[in-house]
Amino acid sequence: MADTWLTTLITATPQEGFELAIKLARMGVKYTQPSAEVRDKLRSVYGEDADALIASSQVVATNFQTIAAANGYWK
Amino acid sequence: MADTWLTTLITATPQEGFELAIKLARMGVKYTQPSAEVRDKLRSVYGEDADALIASSQVVATNFQTIAAANGYWK
Amino acid sequence: MADTWLTTLITATPQEGFELAIKLARMGVKYTQPSAEVRDKLRSVYGEDADALIASSQVVATNFQTIAAANGYWK
Amino acid sequence: MADTWLTTLITATPQEGFELAIKLARMGVKYTQPSAEVRDKLRSVYGEDADALIASSQVVATNFQTIAAANGYWK
Amino acid sequence: MADTWLTTLITATPQEGFELAIKLARMGVKYTQPSAEVRDKLRSVYGEDADALIASSQVVATNFQTIAAANGYWK
Amino acid sequence: MADTWLTTLITATPQEGFELAIKLARMGVKYTQPSAEVRDKLRSVYGEDADALIASSQVVATNFQTIAAANGYWK
Repeated sequence: MADTWLTTLITATPQEGFELAIKLARMGVKYTQPSAEVRDKLRSVYGEDADALIASSQVVATNFQTIAAANGYWK
Repeated sequence: MADTWLTTLITATPQEGFELAIKLARMGVKYTQPSAEVRDKLRSVYGEDADALIASSQVVATNFQTIAAANGYWK
Repeated sequence: MADTWLTTLITATPQEGFELAIKLARMGVKYTQPSAEVRDKLRSVYGEDADALIASSQVVATNFQTIAAANGYWK
Repeated sequence: MADTWLTTLITATPQEGFELAIKLARMGVKYTQPSAEVRDKLRSVYGEDADALIASSQVVATNFQTIAAANGYWK
Repeated sequence: MADTWLTTLITATPQEGFELAIKLARMGVKYTQPSAEVRDKLRSVYGEDADALIASSQVVATNFQTIAAANGYWK
Repeated sequence: MADTWLTTLITATPQEGFELAIKLARMGVKYTQPSAEVRDKLRSVYGEDADALIASSQVVATNFQTIAAANGYWK
Protein backbone atom coordinates (compact mmCIF):
# COMPACT_ATOMS: atom_id res chain seq x y z
CA MET A 1 0.00 0.00 0.00
CA ALA A 2 1.93 2.97 -1.28
CA ASP A 3 -0.39 5.69 0.06
CA THR A 4 0.49 7.59 3.18
CA TRP A 5 -2.49 7.45 5.51
CA LEU A 6 -1.00 7.49 9.02
CA THR A 7 1.60 10.04 9.98
CA THR A 8 0.82 10.50 13.67
CA LEU A 9 -1.22 9.05 16.54
CA ILE A 10 -1.62 12.50 18.13
CA THR A 11 -5.07 14.05 17.96
CA ALA A 12 -6.53 17.28 19.30
CA THR A 13 -9.36 15.66 21.26
CA PRO A 14 -10.43 12.23 22.61
CA GLN A 15 -13.21 12.14 20.03
CA GLU A 16 -10.76 12.62 17.17
CA GLY A 17 -8.71 9.86 18.78
CA PHE A 18 -11.73 7.59 18.78
CA GLU A 19 -12.35 8.36 15.14
CA LEU A 20 -8.73 7.53 14.35
CA ALA A 21 -9.24 4.22 16.18
CA ILE A 22 -12.09 3.50 13.82
CA LYS A 23 -9.87 4.31 10.87
CA LEU A 24 -7.20 1.89 12.12
CA ALA A 25 -9.84 -0.83 12.51
CA ARG A 26 -10.95 -0.30 8.93
CA MET A 27 -7.39 -0.22 7.62
CA GLY A 28 -6.77 -3.54 9.40
CA VAL A 29 -9.51 -4.96 7.18
CA LYS A 30 -8.40 -3.13 4.04
CA TYR A 31 -4.88 -4.56 4.09
CA THR A 32 -6.39 -8.06 4.00
CA GLN A 33 -9.21 -7.26 1.57
CA PRO A 34 -8.06 -4.41 -0.70
CA SER A 35 -11.15 -4.44 -2.92
CA ALA A 36 -13.48 -1.56 -1.99
CA GLU A 37 -16.25 -3.32 -3.88
CA VAL A 38 -15.98 -6.48 -1.79
CA ARG A 39 -15.71 -4.49 1.47
CA ASP A 40 -18.83 -2.46 0.61
CA LYS A 41 -20.75 -5.63 -0.13
CA LEU A 42 -19.67 -7.16 3.18
CA ARG A 43 -20.51 -3.99 5.13
CA SER A 44 -24.14 -4.08 4.00
CA VAL A 45 -24.33 -7.58 5.50
CA TYR A 46 -22.47 -7.21 8.78
CA GLY A 47 -24.05 -3.82 9.47
CA GLU A 48 -27.18 -5.78 10.31
CA ASP A 49 -25.36 -8.50 12.26
CA ALA A 50 -25.11 -7.76 16.00
CA ASP A 51 -22.17 -10.12 16.52
CA ALA A 52 -20.13 -8.47 13.78
CA LEU A 53 -20.96 -4.99 15.05
CA ILE A 54 -19.87 -5.90 18.58
CA ALA A 55 -16.67 -7.47 17.23
CA SER A 56 -15.99 -4.26 15.28
CA SER A 57 -16.46 -2.23 18.44
CA GLN A 58 -13.92 -4.51 20.14
CA VAL A 59 -11.31 -3.72 17.49
CA VAL A 60 -12.02 -0.01 17.90
CA ALA A 61 -11.65 -0.31 21.70
CA THR A 62 -8.26 -1.98 21.29
CA ASN A 63 -7.02 0.67 18.88
CA PHE A 64 -8.39 3.42 21.12
CA GLN A 65 -6.23 2.08 23.98
CA THR A 66 -3.16 2.63 21.84
CA ILE A 67 -4.18 6.10 20.71
CA ALA A 68 -5.25 7.22 24.18
CA ALA A 69 -1.87 6.15 25.58
CA ALA A 70 -0.09 7.96 22.75
CA ASN A 71 -1.92 11.16 23.68
CA GLY A 72 -1.30 10.88 27.41
CA TYR A 73 -5.04 10.39 27.71
CA TRP A 74 -5.55 14.06 26.65
CA LYS A 75 -4.94 15.22 30.19
CA MET B 1 -20.13 12.34 12.67
CA ALA B 2 -20.28 16.06 13.28
CA ASP B 3 -21.63 15.94 16.85
CA THR B 4 -19.31 16.41 19.77
CA TRP B 5 -19.87 13.54 22.18
CA LEU B 6 -16.46 12.95 23.81
CA THR B 7 -14.47 15.82 25.24
CA THR B 8 -12.66 14.08 28.10
CA LEU B 9 -11.92 10.66 29.56
CA ILE B 10 -11.86 12.05 33.10
CA THR B 11 -14.76 11.13 35.35
CA ALA B 12 -15.58 11.86 38.98
CA THR B 13 -15.95 8.23 40.05
CA PRO B 14 -15.10 4.70 38.86
CA GLN B 15 -18.79 4.08 38.23
CA GLU B 16 -19.05 7.10 35.94
CA GLY B 17 -15.94 5.77 34.22
CA PHE B 18 -17.62 2.42 33.72
CA GLU B 19 -20.67 4.13 32.28
CA LEU B 20 -18.43 6.08 29.89
CA ALA B 21 -16.87 2.74 28.85
CA ILE B 22 -20.35 1.55 27.94
CA LYS B 23 -20.91 4.69 25.91
CA LEU B 24 -17.66 4.12 23.99
CA ALA B 25 -18.71 0.52 23.28
CA ARG B 26 -22.01 1.75 21.88
CA MET B 27 -20.36 4.48 19.83
CA GLY B 28 -18.04 1.86 18.36
CA VAL B 29 -21.17 0.21 17.00
CA LYS B 30 -22.85 3.46 15.98
CA TYR B 31 -20.01 4.58 13.71
CA THR B 32 -20.44 1.34 11.75
CA GLN B 33 -24.24 1.23 11.86
CA PRO B 34 -25.53 4.84 12.07
CA SER B 35 -29.21 3.90 11.82
CA ALA B 36 -30.86 4.07 15.26
CA GLU B 37 -33.72 2.04 13.88
CA VAL B 38 -31.48 -0.85 12.84
CA ARG B 39 -29.52 -0.72 16.12
CA ASP B 40 -32.75 -0.85 18.16
CA LYS B 41 -33.95 -3.83 16.17
CA LEU B 42 -30.66 -5.64 16.71
CA ARG B 43 -30.61 -4.84 20.44
CA SER B 44 -33.92 -6.59 20.99
CA VAL B 45 -32.34 -9.71 19.51
CA TYR B 46 -28.89 -9.75 21.09
CA GLY B 47 -30.26 -8.68 24.47
CA GLU B 48 -31.53 -12.24 24.75
CA ASP B 49 -28.37 -13.85 23.35
CA ALA B 50 -25.85 -14.79 26.05
CA ASP B 51 -22.90 -14.86 23.63
CA ALA B 52 -23.62 -11.35 22.39
CA LEU B 53 -24.08 -10.02 25.93
CA ILE B 54 -20.76 -11.50 27.03
CA ALA B 55 -19.06 -10.07 23.93
CA SER B 56 -20.53 -6.67 24.77
CA SER B 57 -19.19 -6.92 28.30
CA GLN B 58 -15.76 -7.68 26.80
CA VAL B 59 -15.83 -4.44 24.80
CA VAL B 60 -16.84 -2.53 27.93
CA ALA B 61 -13.98 -4.14 29.88
CA THR B 62 -11.49 -3.07 27.23
CA ASN B 63 -12.75 0.50 27.18
CA PHE B 64 -12.81 0.58 30.98
CA GLN B 65 -9.08 -0.26 31.00
CA THR B 66 -8.43 2.86 28.96
CA ILE B 67 -10.63 5.08 31.09
CA ALA B 68 -9.31 3.73 34.39
CA ALA B 69 -5.74 4.41 33.25
CA ALA B 70 -6.74 7.93 32.17
CA ASN B 71 -8.08 8.60 35.65
CA GLY B 72 -5.08 7.18 37.49
CA TYR B 73 -7.46 4.48 38.69
CA TRP B 74 -9.30 7.11 40.81
CA LYS B 75 -6.73 6.73 43.58
CA MET C 1 -28.72 3.19 36.39
CA ALA C 2 -29.19 5.38 39.42
CA ASP C 3 -27.72 2.98 42.01
CA THR C 4 -24.21 3.42 43.28
CA TRP C 5 -22.41 0.13 42.92
CA LEU C 6 -18.76 1.05 42.26
CA THR C 7 -16.98 3.57 44.44
CA THR C 8 -13.42 2.25 44.30
CA LEU C 9 -11.18 -0.25 42.50
CA ILE C 10 -9.07 -0.79 45.63
CA THR C 11 -9.45 -4.12 47.40
CA ALA C 12 -7.76 -5.66 50.41
CA THR C 13 -6.56 -8.80 48.65
CA PRO C 14 -6.02 -10.18 45.12
CA GLN C 15 -8.94 -12.52 45.62
CA GLU C 16 -11.30 -9.65 46.46
CA GLY C 17 -9.94 -7.96 43.36
CA PHE C 18 -10.77 -11.02 41.29
CA GLU C 19 -14.27 -11.06 42.73
CA LEU C 20 -14.67 -7.38 41.84
CA ALA C 21 -13.55 -8.27 38.30
CA ILE C 22 -16.41 -10.76 38.17
CA LYS C 23 -18.81 -8.10 39.35
CA LEU C 24 -17.65 -5.72 36.59
CA ALA C 25 -18.13 -8.48 34.01
CA ARG C 26 -21.69 -9.02 35.21
CA MET C 27 -22.45 -5.31 35.32
CA GLY C 28 -21.23 -5.06 31.72
CA VAL C 29 -24.03 -7.46 30.86
CA LYS C 30 -26.59 -5.83 33.15
CA TYR C 31 -26.30 -2.40 31.52
CA THR C 32 -27.24 -4.01 28.19
CA GLN C 33 -29.85 -6.40 29.57
CA PRO C 34 -31.40 -4.82 32.70
CA SER C 35 -34.00 -7.55 33.23
CA ALA C 36 -32.92 -9.91 36.04
CA GLU C 37 -35.45 -12.40 34.81
CA VAL C 38 -33.94 -12.56 31.32
CA ARG C 39 -30.39 -12.71 32.70
CA ASP C 40 -31.28 -15.61 35.01
CA LYS C 41 -32.86 -17.50 32.14
CA LEU C 42 -29.77 -16.98 30.00
CA ARG C 43 -27.41 -18.01 32.80
CA SER C 44 -29.05 -21.41 33.12
CA VAL C 45 -28.26 -21.94 29.44
CA TYR C 46 -24.74 -20.59 29.11
CA GLY C 47 -23.68 -22.14 32.43
CA GLU C 48 -23.66 -25.43 30.54
CA ASP C 49 -22.00 -24.02 27.41
CA ALA C 50 -18.21 -24.31 27.47
CA ASP C 51 -17.69 -21.57 24.86
CA ALA C 52 -19.77 -19.08 26.86
CA LEU C 53 -18.02 -19.97 30.11
CA ILE C 54 -14.59 -19.47 28.53
CA ALA C 55 -15.74 -16.14 27.04
CA SER C 56 -16.95 -15.07 30.49
CA SER C 57 -13.58 -15.96 31.97
CA GLN C 58 -11.98 -13.78 29.28
CA VAL C 59 -14.03 -10.78 30.38
CA VAL C 60 -13.06 -11.42 33.99
CA ALA C 61 -9.38 -11.64 33.01
CA THR C 62 -9.59 -8.28 31.24
CA ASN C 63 -11.27 -6.60 34.20
CA PHE C 64 -8.78 -8.21 36.58
CA GLN C 65 -5.94 -6.55 34.63
CA THR C 66 -7.48 -3.18 35.38
CA ILE C 67 -8.10 -3.91 39.05
CA ALA C 68 -4.67 -5.44 39.60
CA ALA C 69 -3.01 -2.36 38.10
CA ALA C 70 -5.20 -0.11 40.29
CA ASN C 71 -3.96 -1.97 43.37
CA GLY C 72 -0.29 -1.92 42.40
CA TYR C 73 -0.62 -5.68 42.06
CA TRP C 74 -1.06 -5.91 45.89
CA LYS C 75 2.70 -5.81 46.36
CA MET D 1 -17.08 -18.30 47.47
CA ALA D 2 -15.83 -18.38 51.04
CA ASP D 3 -12.56 -20.26 50.39
CA THR D 4 -9.30 -18.39 50.21
CA TRP D 5 -7.56 -19.39 47.00
CA LEU D 6 -5.60 -16.29 45.93
CA THR D 7 -3.40 -14.45 48.39
CA THR D 8 -0.67 -13.16 46.09
CA LEU D 9 0.24 -12.74 42.41
CA ILE D 10 3.95 -13.19 43.16
CA THR D 11 5.55 -16.43 42.03
CA ALA D 12 9.09 -17.75 42.16
CA THR D 13 9.41 -18.41 38.43
CA PRO D 14 7.73 -17.49 35.13
CA GLN D 15 6.48 -21.06 34.83
CA GLU D 16 4.76 -20.88 38.22
CA GLY D 17 3.29 -17.59 37.04
CA PHE D 18 1.96 -19.27 33.92
CA GLU D 19 0.44 -22.02 36.03
CA LEU D 20 -1.20 -19.38 38.24
CA ALA D 21 -2.60 -17.79 35.06
CA ILE D 22 -4.20 -21.13 34.25
CA LYS D 23 -5.69 -21.26 37.73
CA LEU D 24 -7.19 -17.79 37.30
CA ALA D 25 -8.69 -18.84 33.96
CA ARG D 26 -10.31 -21.84 35.60
CA MET D 27 -11.55 -19.82 38.57
CA GLY D 28 -13.16 -17.39 36.11
CA VAL D 29 -15.21 -20.32 34.90
CA LYS D 30 -15.86 -21.73 38.37
CA TYR D 31 -17.45 -18.55 39.70
CA THR D 32 -20.01 -18.76 36.89
CA GLN D 33 -20.46 -22.54 36.98
CA PRO D 34 -19.80 -23.72 40.55
CA SER D 35 -20.73 -27.35 39.90
CA ALA D 36 -17.59 -29.50 39.55
CA GLU D 37 -19.71 -32.20 37.97
CA VAL D 38 -20.93 -29.91 35.18
CA ARG D 39 -17.42 -28.47 34.61
CA ASP D 40 -15.92 -31.97 34.32
CA LYS D 41 -18.58 -32.96 31.81
CA LEU D 42 -17.90 -29.84 29.75
CA ARG D 43 -14.14 -30.34 29.87
CA SER D 44 -14.38 -33.76 28.25
CA VAL D 45 -16.18 -32.07 25.35
CA TYR D 46 -14.15 -28.90 24.82
CA GLY D 47 -10.86 -30.73 25.38
CA GLU D 48 -11.42 -32.14 21.89
CA ASP D 49 -12.61 -28.85 20.38
CA ALA D 50 -9.80 -26.79 18.84
CA ASP D 51 -11.75 -23.53 19.02
CA ALA D 52 -12.42 -23.93 22.74
CA LEU D 53 -8.81 -24.89 23.43
CA ILE D 54 -7.53 -21.82 21.59
CA ALA D 55 -10.04 -19.61 23.44
CA SER D 56 -8.82 -21.09 26.74
CA SER D 57 -5.24 -20.31 25.79
CA GLN D 58 -6.35 -16.72 25.10
CA VAL D 59 -7.71 -16.38 28.64
CA VAL D 60 -4.46 -17.79 30.04
CA ALA D 61 -2.45 -15.31 27.94
CA THR D 62 -4.47 -12.41 29.32
CA ASN D 63 -4.05 -13.54 32.91
CA PHE D 64 -0.35 -14.16 32.32
CA GLN D 65 0.04 -10.51 31.27
CA THR D 66 -1.27 -9.46 34.67
CA ILE D 67 0.90 -11.89 36.61
CA ALA D 68 4.04 -11.12 34.62
CA ALA D 69 3.57 -7.40 35.28
CA ALA D 70 3.01 -8.12 38.98
CA ASN D 71 6.33 -9.95 39.10
CA GLY D 72 8.30 -7.32 37.21
CA TYR D 73 8.63 -9.92 34.48
CA TRP D 74 10.91 -11.99 36.79
CA LYS D 75 13.89 -9.89 35.80
CA MET E 1 11.68 -21.45 11.07
CA ALA E 2 15.30 -20.79 10.31
CA ASP E 3 14.80 -17.52 8.40
CA THR E 4 15.41 -14.21 10.08
CA TRP E 5 12.35 -12.05 9.57
CA LEU E 6 12.16 -9.85 12.69
CA THR E 7 15.18 -7.98 13.94
CA THR E 8 13.57 -4.91 15.46
CA LEU E 9 10.21 -3.44 16.45
CA ILE E 10 11.39 0.10 15.68
CA THR E 11 9.93 1.75 12.61
CA ALA E 12 10.33 5.19 11.07
CA THR E 13 6.63 6.06 11.05
CA PRO E 14 3.32 4.91 12.63
CA GLN E 15 2.22 3.60 9.25
CA GLU E 16 5.29 1.40 8.93
CA GLY E 17 4.53 0.23 12.45
CA PHE E 18 1.01 -0.66 11.42
CA GLU E 19 2.35 -2.57 8.45
CA LEU E 20 4.73 -4.45 10.75
CA ALA E 21 1.73 -5.30 12.94
CA ILE E 22 0.10 -6.86 9.91
CA LYS E 23 3.25 -8.86 9.25
CA LEU E 24 3.26 -10.16 12.83
CA ALA E 25 -0.39 -11.18 12.47
CA ARG E 26 0.43 -13.12 9.33
CA MET E 27 3.50 -14.74 10.86
CA GLY E 28 1.32 -15.87 13.79
CA VAL E 29 -0.68 -17.81 11.22
CA LYS E 30 2.34 -19.02 9.27
CA TYR E 31 3.99 -20.68 12.26
CA THR E 32 0.83 -22.80 12.68
CA GLN E 33 0.19 -23.38 8.98
CA PRO E 34 3.55 -23.29 7.15
CA SER E 35 2.13 -24.23 3.75
CA ALA E 36 1.84 -21.16 1.52
CA GLU E 37 -0.50 -23.10 -0.73
CA VAL E 38 -2.96 -23.80 2.09
CA ARG E 39 -2.75 -20.22 3.39
CA ASP E 40 -3.46 -18.80 -0.08
CA LYS E 41 -6.46 -21.08 -0.46
CA LEU E 42 -7.81 -20.00 2.94
CA ARG E 43 -7.24 -16.31 2.20
CA SER E 44 -9.47 -16.42 -0.86
CA VAL E 45 -12.24 -17.69 1.41
CA TYR E 46 -11.88 -15.51 4.51
CA GLY E 47 -11.21 -12.40 2.43
CA GLU E 48 -14.93 -12.48 1.66
CA ASP E 49 -15.98 -13.33 5.24
CA ALA E 50 -16.72 -10.25 7.37
CA ASP E 51 -16.22 -12.08 10.67
CA ALA E 52 -12.78 -13.34 9.65
CA LEU E 53 -11.76 -9.89 8.38
CA ILE E 54 -12.80 -8.25 11.65
CA ALA E 55 -10.96 -10.94 13.63
CA SER E 56 -7.85 -10.28 11.53
CA SER E 57 -8.12 -6.58 12.25
CA GLN E 58 -8.29 -7.44 15.98
CA VAL E 59 -4.98 -9.31 15.77
CA VAL E 60 -3.42 -6.38 13.95
CA ALA E 61 -4.72 -3.98 16.63
CA THR E 62 -3.14 -6.10 19.36
CA ASN E 63 0.21 -6.26 17.59
CA PHE E 64 0.06 -2.54 16.87
CA GLN E 65 -0.25 -1.87 20.63
CA THR E 66 3.06 -3.66 21.13
CA ILE E 67 4.81 -1.90 18.29
CA ALA E 68 3.47 1.53 19.20
CA ALA E 69 4.73 1.11 22.77
CA ALA E 70 8.12 -0.03 21.46
CA ASN E 71 8.37 3.17 19.42
CA GLY E 72 7.31 5.48 22.23
CA TYR E 73 4.21 6.15 20.13
CA TRP E 74 6.44 7.96 17.57
CA LYS E 75 6.28 11.14 19.63
CA MET F 1 3.14 -30.63 34.81
CA ALA F 2 6.41 -31.47 36.48
CA ASP F 3 8.72 -30.51 33.58
CA THR F 4 10.53 -27.21 33.60
CA TRP F 5 9.82 -25.49 30.32
CA LEU F 6 9.86 -21.74 31.14
CA THR F 7 12.68 -20.23 33.12
CA THR F 8 12.82 -16.74 31.64
CA LEU F 9 10.94 -14.34 29.39
CA ILE F 10 14.17 -12.74 28.18
CA THR F 11 15.23 -13.50 24.62
CA ALA F 12 18.13 -12.33 22.49
CA THR F 13 16.00 -10.98 19.64
CA PRO F 14 12.41 -9.96 18.88
CA GLN F 15 12.06 -12.99 16.65
CA GLU F 16 13.06 -15.35 19.45
CA GLY F 17 10.54 -13.50 21.59
CA PHE F 18 7.86 -14.08 18.99
CA GLU F 19 8.75 -17.77 18.89
CA LEU F 20 8.51 -17.91 22.69
CA ALA F 21 5.05 -16.30 22.39
CA ILE F 22 4.05 -19.17 20.12
CA LYS F 23 5.35 -21.66 22.67
CA LEU F 24 3.27 -20.00 25.42
CA ALA F 25 0.19 -20.18 23.19
CA ARG F 26 0.75 -23.90 22.66
CA MET F 27 1.42 -24.54 26.34
CA GLY F 28 -1.88 -22.79 27.14
CA VAL F 29 -3.53 -25.49 25.08
CA LYS F 30 -1.39 -28.32 26.44
CA TYR F 31 -2.30 -27.68 30.07
CA THR F 32 -5.97 -28.17 29.13
CA GLN F 33 -5.44 -31.03 26.69
CA PRO F 34 -2.32 -32.96 27.79
CA SER F 35 -2.67 -35.71 25.16
CA ALA F 36 -0.20 -35.14 22.31
CA GLU F 37 -2.22 -37.55 20.20
CA VAL F 38 -5.43 -35.52 20.57
CA ARG F 39 -3.61 -32.23 19.97
CA ASP F 40 -2.00 -33.58 16.77
CA LYS F 41 -5.38 -34.75 15.52
CA LEU F 42 -6.92 -31.34 16.22
CA ARG F 43 -4.04 -29.48 14.56
CA SER F 44 -4.58 -31.25 11.26
CA VAL F 45 -8.15 -29.94 11.35
CA TYR F 46 -7.71 -26.35 12.53
CA GLY F 47 -4.63 -25.85 10.38
CA GLU F 48 -7.06 -25.66 7.45
CA ASP F 49 -9.60 -23.50 9.30
CA ALA F 50 -9.06 -19.76 8.78
CA ASP F 51 -11.01 -18.77 11.92
CA ALA F 52 -8.93 -21.05 14.13
CA LEU F 53 -5.68 -19.84 12.57
CA ILE F 54 -6.63 -16.21 13.15
CA ALA F 55 -7.65 -17.01 16.74
CA SER F 56 -4.26 -18.69 17.25
CA SER F 57 -2.50 -15.61 15.92
CA GLN F 58 -4.51 -13.55 18.45
CA VAL F 59 -3.18 -15.64 21.34
CA VAL F 60 0.36 -15.27 20.01
CA ALA F 61 -0.12 -11.49 19.75
CA THR F 62 -1.25 -11.32 23.38
CA ASN F 63 1.69 -13.36 24.61
CA PHE F 64 4.07 -11.32 22.46
CA GLN F 65 2.88 -8.17 24.27
CA THR F 66 4.01 -9.70 27.55
CA ILE F 67 7.35 -10.88 26.23
CA ALA F 68 8.10 -7.62 24.42
CA ALA F 69 7.44 -5.67 27.62
CA ALA F 70 9.67 -8.07 29.57
CA ASN F 71 12.50 -7.38 27.12
CA GLY F 72 12.10 -3.61 27.14
CA TYR F 73 11.05 -4.01 23.51
CA TRP F 74 14.66 -5.04 22.64
CA LYS F 75 15.69 -1.41 22.43
